[in-house]
Amino acid sequence: MQNSTPVLIVKKFGGTSVGSIERIKHVASLLQGKGKLCVVVSAMAGETDRLLKLASSVTSDPEPREVDALLGTGEQVTASLLAMELISRGVKARSFDGSQARISTDGIHRHAKITGIDTSELLASIDRGEIPIVTGFQGVDTKGDTTTLGRGGSDISAVALAAALKAKECHIYTDVEGVYSTDPRIVPNARLLPRISHEEMLELASLGAKVLHPRSVYFAMAYKVPLVVRSTFVEGEGTWIVPEEELMEKPIVSGITYRTDETKIRIAKVPGGIESIKRIFVTLAERGIFVDMISQTGSSEGKTSISFTVLDEQGKDALKIVEDACRELKASEVAVDTDIAKVSVVGVGMRYHTGVAADLFTVLAREGIEVSMISTSEIKVSILVPRKYCELAVRALHDAFLVEVSVEK
Amino acid sequence: MQNSTPVLIVKKFGGTSVGSIERIKHVASLLQGKGKLCVVVSAMAGETDRLLKLASSVTSDPEPREVDALLGTGEQVTASLLAMELISRGVKARSFDGSQARISTDGIHRHAKITGIDTSELLASIDRGEIPIVTGFQGVDTKGDTTTLGRGGSDISAVALAAALKAKECHIYTDVEGVYSTDPRIVPNARLLPRISHEEMLELASLGAKVLHPRSVYFAMAYKVPLVVRSTFVEGEGTWIVPEEELMEKPIVSGITYRTDETKIRIAKVPGGIESIKRIFVTLAERGIFVDMISQTGSSEGKTSISFTVLDEQGKDALKIVEDACRELKASEVAVDTDIAKVSVVGVGMRYHTGVAADLFTVLAREGIEVSMISTSEIKVSILVPRKYCELAVRALHDAFLVEVSVEK
Repeated sequence: MQNSTPVLIVKKFGGTSVGSIERIKHVASLLQGKGKLCVVVSAMAGETDRLLKLASSVTSDPEPREVDALLGTGEQVTASLLAMELISRGVKARSFDGSQARISTDGIHRHAKITGIDTSELLASIDRGEIPIVTGFQGVDTKGDTTTLGRGGSDISAVALAAALKAKECHIYTDVEGVYSTDPRIVPNARLLPRISHEEMLELASLGAKVLHPRSVYFAMAYKVPLVVRSTFVEGEGTWIVPEEELMEKPIVSGITYRTDETKIRIAKVPGGIESIKRIFVTLAERGIFVDMISQTGSSEGKTSISFTVLDEQGKDALKIVEDACRELKASEVAVDTDIAKVSVVGVGMRYHTGVAADLFTVLAREGIEVSMISTSEIKVSILVPRKYCELAVRALHDAFLVEVSVEK
Repeated sequence: MQNSTPVLIVKKFGGTSVGSIERIKHVASLLQGKGKLCVVVSAMAGETDRLLKLASSVTSDPEPREVDALLGTGEQVTASLLAMELISRGVKARSFDGSQARISTDGIHRHAKITGIDTSELLASIDRGEIPIVTGFQGVDTKGDTTTLGRGGSDISAVALAAALKAKECHIYTDVEGVYSTDPRIVPNARLLPRISHEEMLELASLGAKVLHPRSVYFAMAYKVPLVVRSTFVEGEGTWIVPEEELMEKPIVSGITYRTDETKIRIAKVPGGIESIKRIFVTLAERGIFVDMISQTGSSEGKTSISFTVLDEQGKDALKIVEDACRELKASEVAVDTDIAKVSVVGVGMRYHTGVAADLFTVLAREGIEVSMISTSEIKVSILVPRKYCELAVRALHDAFLVEVSVEK
């Protein structure tokens, strides 16, 4: 259909941004007089957890369809309250649930994927001069049942709506000022990044910077939706997530991130070469174990040693599988280490610069931090260090790559 | 459409019946193995008030469409939780909101009326062997917006669904054991009535016995739905509401009820006869004042005295209107009395017996209770007494009409 709203902007407000009546009133004040808008809201902070707790006190394994019907009420409450507040200010507004907004999804409850958005009702609302307030996180399947998109789903709703409505921009309002060069809690001089590429954001998001849901970044990249993350509470431009080609200067390192929820498993002296290794990883995959880093340390006497990391929560299952396989393969040693941290250095400039890994080793060696694994991608280098050195490693690398102009060698 | 479920029963559970997870589990236990059912649920006790409080803390005059969208979430939460509980017990169940259950209403938000029910989805669910759990109190208008039926609306939903589904019976589960001959809190030997006629129930319901919403009784009468009110917590048959012709024995008095929320206004010596009186009541009606009892006490010298009652909450407005009118009409006196109680004696047998009013005066005279107004209908006599005598009057009348076989004269 024709895009009748060329200057439309989609604004999304997360749970803490609408966590109380006072905050909902504040959000309304941010929307007044801002031109053509479509607004997406999350459930009030804590509400989704409250509803999930109700469900889990009924049964440990609640029916997914009913969980979605239950959870869907959370965003509806916010959407109605925000619409009321706007109307009481003399601003035309109207709440839309997933079905009324015609956000179609597949029927996979709890983890539904958006299959299409019929924008006719929303565009009609905007043409009437209203601000449609759409419940994030949810849609409707072909049976007319409410579905939810999984944690962080409201970000996906917002970007998908921005794409479907051909919005000029999508603004994600949250409780942080944007994307930082690293975690400000451990590096006080972490910098707020004014711009970052989609690829970098994806690496940072997946690696633990809980600012944007990775699928929303994919959507923004695929549909070329200009996306910004900014604070609901502090004025500021926030961080724009842009195509790499729009970054004037391509920093070698944009951000440093870390996670401490992985377990390392090392198998030493596996006989049988690649065939044996393959069997272990095929079994892990079949059992639904997500393997993150893998590094194979050279073989001697036809025997291979290999290390890999899995999520802590899957550690026990993974170990069981590996031990069974090792008995069969007669591998001599299995070692587990949960006391680790993974630190990642991300930057699109790595595509054009070599030597980041070398610089990284230099910095860590200076601090006396031993690196037990390393894995690299086009725009990222991740290393595994002892858990106790995590903060020190992040600070040292931040100082080296993001504060100092060059690393002293 | 063909009724494929001849033995279907509709069961409705009110807010206190589903007021906690424990109670929802108890309700599920009442539904297991009970044959073909359609269940209607209210919001968990306190939830509707919580949502209304959220709305009123946003604005004193919230948009009705948004209030309905907000309130509609209350029953959805109950419906999902109950469906989950049933499914976890191995009972097939599925929640339906007003739209999914295809309960069509007009577009009058907060006080919508049901205009039709397309039972195809519900019957399909029942045919699949499921128990559909329908959100009470709500429907959907032609625009696809959630509407609510007003306080007590879940009773209406239940009876309307029973009529549309051609159910054999409609069971209303609540926190009392049924309809009593009077308020058991003031008359300990009040009797639980096994059967009562629709007309009597309507009189009792309108007069303050908060057991069933009057509109649900009208629906049951109009669509000949066998209706029973019983307790969720105590086993028992409850009270059946039946057509008068099905009452084997037609008691002269079935119940005694009272209310203390009315104000009496007396205007003395109004000149101008019926024309002046008419003007006062037309003005009251135009201003939305609901007048309950009216009694005109004879005129002398061409002047009339008249008394009437209004709800306390409308007392001030009514008095203002009356005082303005009296100045204009040069009526000499206006008196207000808020210290009153209205006691009503209800029974279909009055149609066939005279002398109930006489018996009533005899009983009250014996107790020294003065009656300041009386109004009668075919199956009811209401009297106005001083507030302080309310409980005494109810007890004395209950003893006389419902415990003793005949009144001693």
